[in-house]
Amino acid sequence: MKAISIGLLGLGTVGSGVVQIIENHQDKLMHQIGCPVMIKKILVKDENKERTVHIERELLTTNPDDILESPEIDIVIEVMGGVEETKNYLLKALQNRKHIVTANKDLMAVYGSELLSVATENGCDLFYEASVAGGIPILRGLVDGLASDRITKMMGIVNGTTNYILTKMSKQGSRYEDVLKEAQELGYAEADPTSDVGGWDAARKMAILATLGFSMNIDLDDVKVKGITEISEEDLSYSKKLGYTMKLIGIASRLENKVEVSVQPTLLPESHPLASVNDEYNAVYVYGEAVGETMFYGPGAGSLPTATAVVSDLVGVMKNMRLGVNGRSAVSPQFEKSLKQPGEIFSKYFVRLHVKDEVGVFAAITSIFSEHGASFEKILQMPLKQNELAEIVLVTHRTSLQDYEDILQKLNDYEMVKEIKSTYRVEGEGVI
Amino acid sequence: MKAISIGLLGLGTVGSGVVQIIENHQDKLMHQIGCPVMIKKILVKDENKERTVHIERELLTTNPDDILESPEIDIVIEVMGGVEETKNYLLKALQNRKHIVTANKDLMAVYGSELLSVATENGCDLFYEASVAGGIPILRGLVDGLASDRITKMMGIVNGTTNYILTKMSKQGSRYEDVLKEAQELGYAEADPTSDVGGWDAARKMAILATLGFSMNIDLDDVKVKGITEISEEDLSYSKKLGYTMKLIGIASRLENKVEVSVQPTLLPESHPLASVNDEYNAVYVYGEAVGETMFYGPGAGSLPTATAVVSDLVGVMKNMRLGVNGRSAVSPQFEKSLKQPGEIFSKYFVRLHVKDEVGVFAAITSIFSEHGASFEKILQMPLKQNELAEIVLVTHRTSLQDYEDILQKLNDYEMVKEIKSTYRVEGEGVI
Repeated sequence: MKAISIGLLGLGTVGSGVVQIIENHQDKLMHQIGCPVMIKKILVKDENKERTVHIERELLTTNPDDILESPEIDIVIEVMGGVEETKNYLLKALQNRKHIVTANKDLMAVYGSELLSVATENGCDLFYEASVAGGIPILRGLVDGLASDRITKMMGIVNGTTNYILTKMSKQGSRYEDVLKEAQELGYAEADPTSDVGGWDAARKMAILATLGFSMNIDLDDVKVKGITEISEEDLSYSKKLGYTMKLIGIASRLENKVEVSVQPTLLPESHPLASVNDEYNAVYVYGEAVGETMFYGPGAGSLPTATAVVSDLVGVMKNMRLGVNGRSAVSPQFEKSLKQPGEIFSKYFVRLHVKDEVGVFAAITSIFSEHGASFEKILQMPLKQNELAEIVLVTHRTSLQDYEDILQKLNDYEMVKEIKSTYRVEGEGVI
Repeated sequence: MKAISIGLLGLGTVGSGVVQIIENHQDKLMHQIGCPVMIKKILVKDENKERTVHIERELLTTNPDDILESPEIDIVIEVMGGVEETKNYLLKALQNRKHIVTANKDLMAVYGSELLSVATENGCDLFYEASVAGGIPILRGLVDGLASDRITKMMGIVNGTTNYILTKMSKQGSRYEDVLKEAQELGYAEADPTSDVGGWDAARKMAILATLGFSMNIDLDDVKVKGITEISEEDLSYSKKLGYTMKLIGIASRLENKVEVSVQPTLLPESHPLASVNDEYNAVYVYGEAVGETMFYGPGAGSLPTATAVVSDLVGVMKNMRLGVNGRSAVSPQFEKSLKQPGEIFSKYFVRLHVKDEVGVFAAITSIFSEHGASFEKILQMPLKQNELAEIVLVTHRTSLQDYEDILQKLNDYEMVKEIKSTYRVEGEGVI
């Protein structure tokens, strides 16, 4: 029986994991697919570099065409990262009718739709489970498991670095800068952490999830992003007092055919399933009209979990090859994109203010809220030691983002408000 | 384009949910499958019964052969329950080359292997996602998502009724009997709750999960079962003091090719992902060698969640029909079954004893443990008001079940031990 031949683009930690899994699971793969699987070529930058896994030297190449143009290769696994050059490699592979498995969220968030349609034109599979939430089979869950449901909301902790940092800050009461430094030393955060802590990595994953879950082309530009760099110990301590846990949450919600996709630090009630997802773990909470609440939990990154997702996709491609049905599973987006306006996005909000500690100020502030129809669920006020100021923490009932932005503007203009220290969205209670 | 025709066996709450979802999602189904879906016939006991959903009277029949023998029907959805008669219906349907979707765990736990092999012989699909954990796409997760991994352990909260009862007992400090009565009044527990509270329902689901996850034919008889009927308020209160949460946990674990499958009340550390799965929710925690820890969370029962899982399977069957690849996806078990002996099952244990409050008794008891190589992680001792007795609560380090059973026997024989009040397995810490 003819073996299926793989070309691997990249041999970093994920690539090495893929090699290892394919070697260690030959029996299981044979049993599932009915023929052997072989890695035929691996594209690397430097053939002479020391590797953590043992690789036959003759498998390595520095010439991408040894894979992309080789008639011997059936499937290309892309774990090299990068966007523009990588996209061109994959287009070439598809034109040469090679199926693709990729773990590249940066690429899929930007060129996903284009690549998927080229794949379909060429009768090729293009699978990308590993690009979102590493080892969690969430895309499969969305496509197959919830196929017959209408998904109205997804909330995800989809970045391990920021979840690690927020967990440590909450549990140890440490400062952001200190925890970030510790995370960098432990290898949980990159030397340049901008993409993680700025929320961009999470935004890419939410764009991929929303595109699939809502059957609508959601671009990275459609995602409103706020990172975790400005979260203070005070914010975390007040959250805890009020019964909330702070998480960097990606939200994708839909009402009729209008959607909102955002990433921002968000307060969740401690009893919410996402609130107990700690450390570097990821989870995606999905609300479907029929099924109600489901959650997928697991490692969001890491060499072996991501490699597992890659090999699962590989098994999917190979099963399709055996059945002769490649290139038919991608479903093109069904709906025209339509984004919610700020007047159509509803949520609760937490806001912390420093105000002059004088008679009538609190009443004036509450009237700014009530003019916009916003009332309060929780109120904390306490005097500050310095400067005759008071600190006020308010949690509103559900209000529109439009109203809330107007309220913030008016608070900002009101001379008795010294500073709006922080504000966060509050999710996961009652109304979806 | 020819519509795909469905025959429905049963029109209870799940059946009605299926009818509703298919009607409400015609557009989405069309988009995914490319042709319309129609329910052609529904087998009911009484054609004249009032229904919660509107159904054309002419769709109803009391004659199963109107579905099983009808050349018009492509797919049979079985949501009528029952085992022996239902099995014969499904065999007949398969012999007539109809694909099957079933939500029937009782049937699949007993006749799953036989039905699956008849399905394969006849080129038919037989999907049964809804039979385990209602709305959670766990079977798909095991088959596809973790296809390339080696699953070494699954722990599941797979029965909503018992999880509801244990959650209420823990949170309110109520007695088992009172909560059960309340659950029955609310419709969360059946009038005869034996199958749920005795652990049998969970055992059936664990047999299905273990068969699939370990690729081995696990029968219901292979599952060791203990229910929740003997859990006392004292046990729950001691658990809490020691930092544990009590859950009815199904465990399926494997070392090399030897497996253990059991269902029993189990103590988990409060930080374990399963510990915060509350009320009627279900979750399955899966440990894979490569991926590490993942968890699938969602509603374990209910008309619409279960119906969603049924319709997702239906979509799977219909996609296969369009591709012409039915009957090829069932993978027959790869390994011979081999069950672990008590000497090969390792775990921590919680035990609560009433002993005579005399000098030397505690030393004698600990020496019984140490003779079997078992040491303690946690110890609590306090005098009891009556009868000059003391209460001792011990949590052991990991020990074999064989040793632990010998220890229990010796404690039982020791005259200073008045009574072994309770004992529970402790899971989810450190070593998998």
